[in-house]
Amino acid sequence: MTAALDALRTITTGTITTILLKKGIRRCWMAGAMPFGFSGKRVVGPAFTLRFVPVREDLATPASWSNPISTRSAIEDMPEGCIVVADAMGVTSAGIFGDILCMRMVKRGVSALITDGVMRDKHGIMGTGLSIWCAGVAAPASVNQLTFVGWNESIACGGCAIFPGDIIVADDDGAVVIPQALVDFVASEGAEHELLESWLVQEVEKGEKLPGLYPPNEDNKKRYEDWKKKR
Amino acid sequence: MTAALDALRTITTGTITTILLKKGIRRCWMAGAMPFGFSGKRVVGPAFTLRFVPVREDLATPASWSNPISTRSAIEDMPEGCIVVADAMGVTSAGIFGDILCMRMVKRGVSALITDGVMRDKHGIMGTGLSIWCAGVAAPASVNQLTFVGWNESIACGGCAIFPGDIIVADDDGAVVIPQALVDFVASEGAEHELLESWLVQEVEKGEKLPGLYPPNEDNKKRYEDWKKKR
Amino acid sequence: MTAALDALRTITTGTITTILLKKGIRRCWMAGAMPFGFSGKRVVGPAFTLRFVPVREDLATPASWSNPISTRSAIEDMPEGCIVVADAMGVTSAGIFGDILCMRMVKRGVSALITDGVMRDKHGIMGTGLSIWCAGVAAPASVNQLTFVGWNESIACGGCAIFPGDIIVADDDGAVVIPQALVDFVASEGAEHELLESWLVQEVEKGEKLPGLYPPNEDNKKRYEDWKKKR
Amino acid sequence: MTAALDALRTITTGTITTILLKKGIRRCWMAGAMPFGFSGKRVVGPAFTLRFVPVREDLATPASWSNPISTRSAIEDMPEGCIVVADAMGVTSAGIFGDILCMRMVKRGVSALITDGVMRDKHGIMGTGLSIWCAGVAAPASVNQLTFVGWNESIACGGCAIFPGDIIVADDDGAVVIPQALVDFVASEGAEHELLESWLVQEVEKGEKLPGLYPPNEDNKKRYEDWKKKR
Amino acid sequence: MTAALDALRTITTGTITTILLKKGIRRCWMAGAMPFGFSGKRVVGPAFTLRFVPVREDLATPASWSNPISTRSAIEDMPEGCIVVADAMGVTSAGIFGDILCMRMVKRGVSALITDGVMRDKHGIMGTGLSIWCAGVAAPASVNQLTFVGWNESIACGGCAIFPGDIIVADDDGAVVIPQALVDFVASEGAEHELLESWLVQEVEKGEKLPGLYPPNEDNKKRYEDWKKKR
Amino acid sequence: MTAALDALRTITTGTITTILLKKGIRRCWMAGAMPFGFSGKRVVGPAFTLRFVPVREDLATPASWSNPISTRSAIEDMPEGCIVVADAMGVTSAGIFGDILCMRMVKRGVSALITDGVMRDKHGIMGTGLSIWCAGVAAPASVNQLTFVGWNESIACGGCAIFPGDIIVADDDGAVVIPQALVDFVASEGAEHELLESWLVQEVEKGEKLPGLYPPNEDNKKRYEDWKKKR
Repeated sequence: MTAALDALRTITTGTITTILLKKGIRRCWMAGAMPFGFSGKRVVGPAFTLRFVPVREDLATPASWSNPISTRSAIEDMPEGCIVVADAMGVTSAGIFGDILCMRMVKRGVSALITDGVMRDKHGIMGTGLSIWCAGVAAPASVNQLTFVGWNESIACGGCAIFPGDIIVADDDGAVVIPQALVDFVASEGAEHELLESWLVQEVEKGEKLPGLYPPNEDNKKRYEDWKKKR
Repeated sequence: MTAALDALRTITTGTITTILLKKGIRRCWMAGAMPFGFSGKRVVGPAFTLRFVPVREDLATPASWSNPISTRSAIEDMPEGCIVVADAMGVTSAGIFGDILCMRMVKRGVSALITDGVMRDKHGIMGTGLSIWCAGVAAPASVNQLTFVGWNESIACGGCAIFPGDIIVADDDGAVVIPQALVDFVASEGAEHELLESWLVQEVEKGEKLPGLYPPNEDNKKRYEDWKKKR
Repeated sequence: MTAALDALRTITTGTITTILLKKGIRRCWMAGAMPFGFSGKRVVGPAFTLRFVPVREDLATPASWSNPISTRSAIEDMPEGCIVVADAMGVTSAGIFGDILCMRMVKRGVSALITDGVMRDKHGIMGTGLSIWCAGVAAPASVNQLTFVGWNESIACGGCAIFPGDIIVADDDGAVVIPQALVDFVASEGAEHELLESWLVQEVEKGEKLPGLYPPNEDNKKRYEDWKKKR
Repeated sequence: MTAALDALRTITTGTITTILLKKGIRRCWMAGAMPFGFSGKRVVGPAFTLRFVPVREDLATPASWSNPISTRSAIEDMPEGCIVVADAMGVTSAGIFGDILCMRMVKRGVSALITDGVMRDKHGIMGTGLSIWCAGVAAPASVNQLTFVGWNESIACGGCAIFPGDIIVADDDGAVVIPQALVDFVASEGAEHELLESWLVQEVEKGEKLPGLYPPNEDNKKRYEDWKKKR
Repeated sequence: MTAALDALRTITTGTITTILLKKGIRRCWMAGAMPFGFSGKRVVGPAFTLRFVPVREDLATPASWSNPISTRSAIEDMPEGCIVVADAMGVTSAGIFGDILCMRMVKRGVSALITDGVMRDKHGIMGTGLSIWCAGVAAPASVNQLTFVGWNESIACGGCAIFPGDIIVADDDGAVVIPQALVDFVASEGAEHELLESWLVQEVEKGEKLPGLYPPNEDNKKRYEDWKKKR
Repeated sequence: MTAALDALRTITTGTITTILLKKGIRRCWMAGAMPFGFSGKRVVGPAFTLRFVPVREDLATPASWSNPISTRSAIEDMPEGCIVVADAMGVTSAGIFGDILCMRMVKRGVSALITDGVMRDKHGIMGTGLSIWCAGVAAPASVNQLTFVGWNESIACGGCAIFPGDIIVADDDGAVVIPQALVDFVASEGAEHELLESWLVQEVEKGEKLPGLYPPNEDNKKRYEDWKKKR
């Protein structure tokens, strides 16, 4: 899989969604999870999941923060290079993490944090350098609205199902999930698709009309194949 | 706890929410879960939870329906007298169960099914006699939109956190969850609250004005205490 | 205005919205406020407004229920024949009134209660006989989500502005507000409109085609005028 | 196709969605379109589409109601037995039709009216006897919020694409659309599916457990085949 | 109309909405369509419309991309200087166009693309230099959620009705539509309004109070007229 | 209170929400009100409230703009140093203020404007230098959707209740409200909380694990106290 992951580093999330559609998969782009305070970054890695449910006021006590089931314990379990995907149920009025927890994730070698919820302490978390895809910021802490219940479980995030070990790719168009069994297929088809698109851009740049070109008809398929050989 | 559960059978969901608020709990009423095709029923029992995440098209195959993790296996694990609470993420365009699964739940002695999602096969499920609180009906099956991932886990339902073993009460005003540790408190305070409300109704019926009566001032507290003794 | 109010008792809310549109008024039907547990009732009367804002937890104490600004005081200020319109900000997870307060409104001669929010204690409030247009029921009391802040102020309800003294009409199609200055206009135009519609129904019943009939062309206008004279 | 349409009259919308999923079609159930004031009705027929866009105030004049492009002209073009599907963009605050237009549709032999919007004049339209699937009622007329722009065009309705001539089936679980090219497939597979479900209901009624039964394993497939032969 | 279009180049969208309100038009600003990756641009031109409906999985095949009804054909029909307005039904999880189609629109001289949906391939489309007003980006292509059905039809966009040939103006406050028949009125009234506002800004800058100034009373109207003469 | 207000200038909105939660207050962060066109600003001050209800077309006339109840009169009543909080009911399609009114607020010494609605004339208002927290921009004026009804009343804003004189704090994580009675508590607890967080950041920076550190166990509490003494 390492070769496939390397290949995915040069394939856009847009192309990945197109390739997955060939396999009948439409639910792969996580609504709400957009780049936070940066542009141009790309990340690829296996999903490490976090799960929240709504808050219940009798459980959201200071004592609970030292529970064995806590975001703190989850973070200490994150392997280097993983991409954390947090199911915040799309809640946008409580930030799931601030600077201290983000800083610890960086120390542990986490590649990125992706959530359909929001963050808090905007300046602090930007200072940690963690790559984050989220739906914005809010001042209240997660306990204002959410209860953390576990990690490495199947979760929902932005309308997608995410299973531990699925491969996540994120760039400026957002974050997508690739089922483990399809990673090789996406990597090889995706590379070809990127090549075709680069040829199409050249042709349109030259003034070619779209019908017959994109998607290519027989003539244009041949021209494309010729171009590929000459590269 | 049996005595407390019995007491809860005569306490309305409205009163329960008022008593829980005294303990700072506001998140106890499940939005979306309303009585389905009946009126006047009341149920009380421990929660047995089901959890769904969004569908992923590569997993929603006929083969998957025979998985060890399936709604079928979950149903065979349901104890008599439990109240099933299903986290359908509020999805209203795919019915989580139809007549066959509801019929089996009845056979197993399930007290009620409660969900923030919807059902399918309206006539069939009404024919099974299962007590259901839900957000309506839809023709598509759960696999159209949802993937079942487990049972007896902590879940979200209608904006509430539900933990296995929490006590659920449902009537025509909807369904509420009582944390296990507060069941005795709610049962005893609730009984007193219902008694006060019955006296208040009498007083208003006689033409009493509301200020000073509800909530009662010192004079009216005394009148109420006298009434209680004479009953 | 009494004659106009009497005339409005025979004019549907649908017709009223059509007449108001002639004056450029589109915001007159209150979204969410639908008949609660009955069908066929009609009410007409001046608006008595109630206003809620979101709950703030430091103010939602038992002590607050005895405040001079409370729903209890507001109810004692309601004049006979008024129609209470409550701005609940469209909140559907806390019931603004239960049986005791509804019963007192009935005692004071209130014609109807209209809200973009919900009620609680479904069976109790239906027992009081109060005519209610609302968005459903919920078990929690208003203090779970809302703070009452005043009466006879301008309010929002279901996307409409309501000013104290505006005339409210409600039937099975919902509730509408008529600005005071337009009551006479709506009453007279509305009566004529209802007459035209009754003639149109007869014509369609006979098998007439719609184009040229509804709205009537010159020929059909003449036929309608002849029919009016002969009645 | 007549035979297929006849077969569809005994197949539930629930079963149809399951059969369409085998062909990869998930977008076939129209959100919002539910039975209006009746239960137990079933309709089958080809779609006749209506399309609305938002209102523009300069066009919503009385003069416009006599335009060649009007709902009146569309109705006169409706063939007997068609099922009218109206794209109201899910708007729930303006009723697209009242009693007069519904009465005319009945005269023309329309089988049913289906919309993701709402109706107006609840009592009047129920009196016409037209079968309606919609999202409720509102007092204002369509011109309050919507402009009618054409008929027999491709439309959106409740999250589905509807093309003129698609086959529509509606029952108490809502309304579904079957692409013309798949009607025969759905009719034959659906009949078999209904038969299997009736056998499953019997088995569960006898006390059979679900795993291995639904979906059936090899043993149960054989038992089902035996049962089919003996019928 | 050319003179009017030129005049509109110096009138803000804010002023245009104010002038249109004088004619009773409130539905003229397209919700969701905001400047994409730039600030300070202004465009004016006639609308060229595109229409999408929800995806249907049997039609979203590679073969369909070569249909005579495709976005490719629509683009080849776009006249120089037009403003493309795309009805994406407010869908924010599938990008309607990427770099290749945007590049072709630039080649054809399209002035701007406006949609209530989203784009894909953020960096690619910004590289083309096309002026875009939209609701953001998403990785999936339009076929993930939408089906293209036609061009130069009446459409909905962001809560407005758009008819081919309406005049569109867009700036940093968003995009507005001017009915063709009102273009001259808006242009002349708008110019006067901008002048008044520039005088008002000066007066407030000097420390004048608002009541009596904005809107101006008789004294201030005179002062404004004097100022106009002296300019 | 002056000392408390000064202390609040160094306490983040995030910390304030955490301290308020200790008093059971969760509703203190205003959804929708985010920094407009700047970063890094902080404001603290007493709330001056404005209230809007939906537009009613018969009242939205030019004559009304000279009413004694108008935004113009409200602005002339604003005290120096206040923070204006405007209840726009979360409406995002009409801008409540443009450059002229914002400029006048600056002249009157208003510290900031906070709303759950939107602004208009983006460039003009940024030119005034007023600090604004809002939900974006729209071209139409407030009269397109809203009617102004009063100032210094209790209001709703972004899901919070705001009472005149409450203390408002806003920074890049949004805007929060502190009940007057809790200002001293929040100021003193908040300062201690900020100090603890700065120590925690150092510890995590050194590579400390989270469990036992945050929240601190007995050992870490002692280390923190030692650190405090040595500062």
